[in-house]
This record gives sequence, structure tokens and C-alpha cells, in this order.
Amino acid sequence: MQNFEFYNPTRIVFGPNKIAELNRLVPQNAKVLILFGGASAEKNGTLAEVRTALSQHEVQEFGGIEPNPTYETLMKAVELIRSEKLDFLLAVGGGSVIDGTKFIAAAVNFVGEPWDILTTHGAVVKHAIPFGTVLTLPATGSEMNEGAVITRQATLTKLAFMSEHVFPQFSILDPTKTYTLPKRQVANGVVDAYVHIMEQYLTYPVDGRVQDRFAESLLLTLIEIGPKVLAQPEDYDLRANLMWVATLALNGLIGAGVPQDWATHMIGHELTAAYDIDHARTLAIVLPSMLSIRRTEKRDKLLQYAERVWQITSGSDDERIDQAIAKTRAFFESLEVPTRLSAYTLGQDAVHHVVKQLESNGMVKLGEKKNVTLDVSQRVLEASL
Amino acid sequence: MQNFEFYNPTRIVFGPNKIAELNRLVPQNAKVLILFGGASAEKNGTLAEVRTALSQHEVQEFGGIEPNPTYETLMKAVELIRSEKLDFLLAVGGGSVIDGTKFIAAAVNFVGEPWDILTTHGAVVKHAIPFGTVLTLPATGSEMNEGAVITRQATLTKLAFMSEHVFPQFSILDPTKTYTLPKRQVANGVVDAYVHIMEQYLTYPVDGRVQDRFAESLLLTLIEIGPKVLAQPEDYDLRANLMWVATLALNGLIGAGVPQDWATHMIGHELTAAYDIDHARTLAIVLPSMLSIRRTEKRDKLLQYAERVWQITSGSDDERIDQAIAKTRAFFESLEVPTRLSAYTLGQDAVHHVVKQLESNGMVKLGEKKNVTLDVSQRVLEASL
Repeated sequence: MQNFEFYNPTRIVFGPNKIAELNRLVPQNAKVLILFGGASAEKNGTLAEVRTALSQHEVQEFGGIEPNPTYETLMKAVELIRSEKLDFLLAVGGGSVIDGTKFIAAAVNFVGEPWDILTTHGAVVKHAIPFGTVLTLPATGSEMNEGAVITRQATLTKLAFMSEHVFPQFSILDPTKTYTLPKRQVANGVVDAYVHIMEQYLTYPVDGRVQDRFAESLLLTLIEIGPKVLAQPEDYDLRANLMWVATLALNGLIGAGVPQDWATHMIGHELTAAYDIDHARTLAIVLPSMLSIRRTEKRDKLLQYAERVWQITSGSDDERIDQAIAKTRAFFESLEVPTRLSAYTLGQDAVHHVVKQLESNGMVKLGEKKNVTLDVSQRVLEASL
Repeated sequence: MQNFEFYNPTRIVFGPNKIAELNRLVPQNAKVLILFGGASAEKNGTLAEVRTALSQHEVQEFGGIEPNPTYETLMKAVELIRSEKLDFLLAVGGGSVIDGTKFIAAAVNFVGEPWDILTTHGAVVKHAIPFGTVLTLPATGSEMNEGAVITRQATLTKLAFMSEHVFPQFSILDPTKTYTLPKRQVANGVVDAYVHIMEQYLTYPVDGRVQDRFAESLLLTLIEIGPKVLAQPEDYDLRANLMWVATLALNGLIGAGVPQDWATHMIGHELTAAYDIDHARTLAIVLPSMLSIRRTEKRDKLLQYAERVWQITSGSDDERIDQAIAKTRAFFESLEVPTRLSAYTLGQDAVHHVVKQLESNGMVKLGEKKNVTLDVSQRVLEASL
């Protein structure tokens, strides 16, 4: 096992009708800014519930945070908070609203140009104003971690930052709030969580027995519930399991003490930036080819994955690996999430364009062994055509 | 899945040589009291390492915290802290030292008689002085939870309390510090962790798929490493896995959103109080009979346990349950932990004595369904003769 530090102080409040507890969870004298995205939080009644729960608090609102939250939009919220002297944030939404809120929380009292928070990947963050979240979309895990991804619209630069100061103080997870989500967003959430787990699991063995088994537990659960969650949107237990899996997929636990990859994410980010493909859908395109192309260095874990997650025990090593990758691809496709660039009418030109972007963003040594060069990325993308 | 709240702000610092980081982890101007138990922390060099790491801090020491820490001893530490105006505690040891430190932390600034902290099970605790731990014995999970068990020597009363104010701020887990532990203590630790998991897992199904699989992950790992950990005391990865499993076995995670039992623990506590049998060893006596006697209400989970943890798939329901319980018993015995009262030359008289103690301590409705009456406890103990 590798050495590690694990720290996660976010309080999870899980269950139906838990939004009513905001009155207890938000400090009494706080001046609150509620942040949200588009119209769905209003339409499905979540915002109304939040307003009712905070009726004894001083509250303002800021809507319009985009699916890939932009620095430009978020800085408007920063200005509002500064001018109104607000001191507590409440993100109501999915990963984008929460990611955006993390950046805002760190930027409000930041001395200097807040974009530096992103170019330093969070190193310059010394404090942040406190915030909580009401999660409406299980997918990114942002509700219980310290990371965020922000896009600068002017330059189409997408950068991540991490800081212990931006753990949410609390996150309310009410599975019933996901009942009205479009099927496509739920499917994306399943894939997003799946690939988060794979990035922390499918590397090389370091005898992290609990980490491996916990990762496999989450994968097995997603495989079990994935198609059902889409077919039965108002099944409470299915939605509850999805919500808890997606949170645990990226809260630091399964990645503590083991190597991590993240090459699939880095290439996926460029596909989103260039062609506006949903984040999770880019991962579904890249992951199967990534595993196939890097099968030699990942052999031991691929064979473990084949056996423990997909119960594949017969055939040669390469046959079992091929089967496991094919099963992974078929799982994504069963959720109506395509796994080929051709599904988006992208071809060899796109491969070259994305490789160029990777180069200009310095993404030239990716993966757990820093050996995913531009050449490897190109082969991965070509295998995804 | 049941509703839940999960909160755990303890920072885990895991790996060899991490004690040196105390200098960073303990606040700069803190006046520190180092707390420990017997001579082993001195003998194995852990205390020396701690002193070196804290050489730039103002430090005092308090030794002699017993295996079942007593109120009487702990109150002496409370007086020392009050008179010397110390403001940070560092527990160096296993669960007993850490449990004792939690009580001390809550008692120092408590207004009134600190024993009330225990009679109210922690409800009266409004704050505690901050503390960290250096764990030397993987077993109880106290290093990453908010609970403690304290004994009042004068009356032989053993009471537990829980409070969010007594989460350790940090815990240093250095697996190499366990190399010199006596075999018996390591075996006890394996059994203690195993039964902690079972108390949160072996109840009735609520479709907590991740909780179930995480619990099974920890059980499978203990079964895999248990005998090896005893045979190869200086195998780093085995000790690292044991340490991380024991912490995760009782940090709130696997019990969040599912029913919990704890009847085995309550009966075990009385066996320790009456006959001074090591805590873990009392659990090994009680658990197999507890599962057997309550097999009807626990049927679904017993069958799941048989299949997923012990790979038992053939035979009638009762045969599979019997096999799973027999395997559990054999596992404890393989660690040289006896599973019968007779191993301690205790017979029917002891059964009656323990049942009387349960009655006088109000332990008359135990278990996840509050249906473990004195009669059931008696049958469990008789089945353990």
C-alpha cells in the first residue's frame, strides 16, 4: 500500500425531506447566497423547498451557472457577494453548480487575480467562505470532495483546482430530487461515476486490498443498478444507491493509498472543449480504448477486473482482457451512451485536433506512470473512432 | 436504504515515519499532554519518536491509562491539564488510551460532574479540547470515530459515550509500529474488527448495496490476512491492510444507512466486567451463538454472508447458515482466540451471573429489533458454553 493522507470533513445528510434541515445546517445569522444553474431547480420544486427552509435567513439568489461553469459567470457572483457582504453559499444543483460555488468561495476574499487559483491548481488558496450543497444530480462527487473544474470562456481553457478549504460543510442528498432528471443526465451520471472509480482502480497492484474491493463494490453496484435506474426513475432504493455510489466514487476514499490514472479524463476534457460533448460521454468514448491500448502495463489489474467485476475466468489473458473491455463498452452502450467518436460524426481530423490541444495544454505525460505521451493518446483516440 | 447523517472530520496520516509530521500536525503554540498506557510505548521506541517530533513544543506526559480505562485514572489527567493549563492532547497507544483521551478532552472544561458525560452517553458534551492520536494497535477504530468506553472502577460500571466533539483531529497510522505487538493482541484486533463489521452488517436487508459490499470487502480481507498477519509480523503490507481495515470497520461509513445490532458487544462487556476476559475474546465467545440463536430474524443476511463471504452455495438454508457460523468460529479459533466459555473454565453459573448483570444494567432489549431479551441472551450464553 502507498502512504496516504485522508481527510474529508463534509457532513452528508441523506434521505427524503432533508432539505427542511437547512434551517439547522446553515448558521443562524448567515447572509446566504443560493446558487443554481438553469430552470430545472425551479421547475422541480427544489428551489421552493430551499427557500421555505431558509425563510428565517437573509437570502439572495444567483442563477445561470452553466453546465461547464465559466470563470466569467462565476466572477459576477463574486462581485455580488463582495458588494452585498454575503457570508455563506448554498449550491443547489449538480457538479457544475457545486464546482462553480467552490471557485466562488475561494475567490471572494482572494487577494489578486482569482484566475491564479486555477493556474496554480489551488495552491494559492488560503481560505474560502463556507458553503453547503443540495445535490440534485448524482454524478461528479463534487458534493463530498475538494476539487472543481472551471472553464475560461474567452480562451476555452478548462482547468481544475483542489483545496482543503473548499470541502462543502454539508451536502444534502435527497434521492427523490433525482426522479425528474432527464434519462440522458442519469445515464451520464452512471458513466461518470464508473469512470471515476476506474481511474483510481485500474492501474497496477500495490496490495491495497480494501481499496480494490471497495472500488469493485462500487463498480458491481453500478452494473447491477445502471439499466434499472433508467427504467424505473421513481424507485427510491435504486436512486438512493446510485446517489451514494456516485458520492463515494470520488470522495478520496478509494483513491487513498493507491496509484491513480486520470488520462481518460484529461483526453475527455479536450473532447468537451473542442466539440461540446457531455463530459461523461467523452469518458465512455476514451476509456475502453485506453484500457485496450495500455493493456500491458495494466495487465494485472485488468485480469483482476475481468474476474472480480465481470466474473470472466476462462480464456487466455488477452482474451479475458478483451472480454472485460467489451463488457465495459456494452455496459455504457446499454445506457444509451455511445462509445465511439463516429457517433458524433467525428473522424481522424478530430483525433489530430485533440492531440494538438493536448500538446498545447501540456498534457504530454499522462497516467499513473506518466507514460501516456501524445503518441499513446493518439492511438487511444484512433482506437475510439 | 435508511436515512442517515455521515460526518467524520478526522485526518488520517498513513505510512512509515509519519510520526515525524507531528511537528506540522500539532498547533505551533500548543501546550501538549502526551497520554499513554503501559511500558510498551516506551520500550518499542514510539514515545521517543513522538518526543523528538515535538521537541519544539511545550510538552508534558501522563502514563498509566489502563486496558479498560478507568474514570478514576482519567480524572487525574483532567486535574493535571486544568492545573497546568494544557490545551492539546496526544494519545499514543491503542483503543484504550484513545478512548480515555476522548473522555479527558470532554471532561476538562465540563461544568459539573464529568461522570454525567457517561450517564448521558455524551448528550451533555458541548465542546472538548482538541487532540490527535498515534495508533499502535489496530483493533477498536477509536482513532477515527467519536465513541469511547470508560469504566468506573468503584462500581465496575462500563459505559459508552459518543460526541462529535471528540473526533480526533488527526490520527497517525504507522503499520511498522505494530511489528512488536504480542501475537495475542494482534489476534484480538482481528477479531475485534471482524465483530465490529458483523454488528453493522449481519442484521436484515434494507437494500444498502454499497454498505453490504463494503462490509463484505472488509470481512474478506480480514479472513485473507488474519492468519498471515500473525505468522509474518514484519510484513508491511499485511500490517498496513490490517490497520486500514480495523479503522474502516468502525468509522461510521459501513453503518451509515443500515440497521445495527451490537447485542454481542453488550453481552461481551458484561463478560469482561465479571471475568476480566479481553474484550475481543468475549466477542468471539458470543457472536457465533448469537447468530445461531437469532437465525430466523437474520436469515436473509446470514444466507448472503454464507454466499458472499464464505462462498457457501450448496445445502438447505439452515445447512448453509450452519456452515457459515462454523466457518466464523473456525476463523476465530485459527487465530488462537477461543470461542467457548469453557476455555475460561466458566459454566452455567457464569451464564446466570452475566444475565443478572445484564438485567441490573438495563440491557433487556438488545439488537437491531430490540428483541434480544434476557431470555434470548441466556440462550446465547448457554449455546456458548
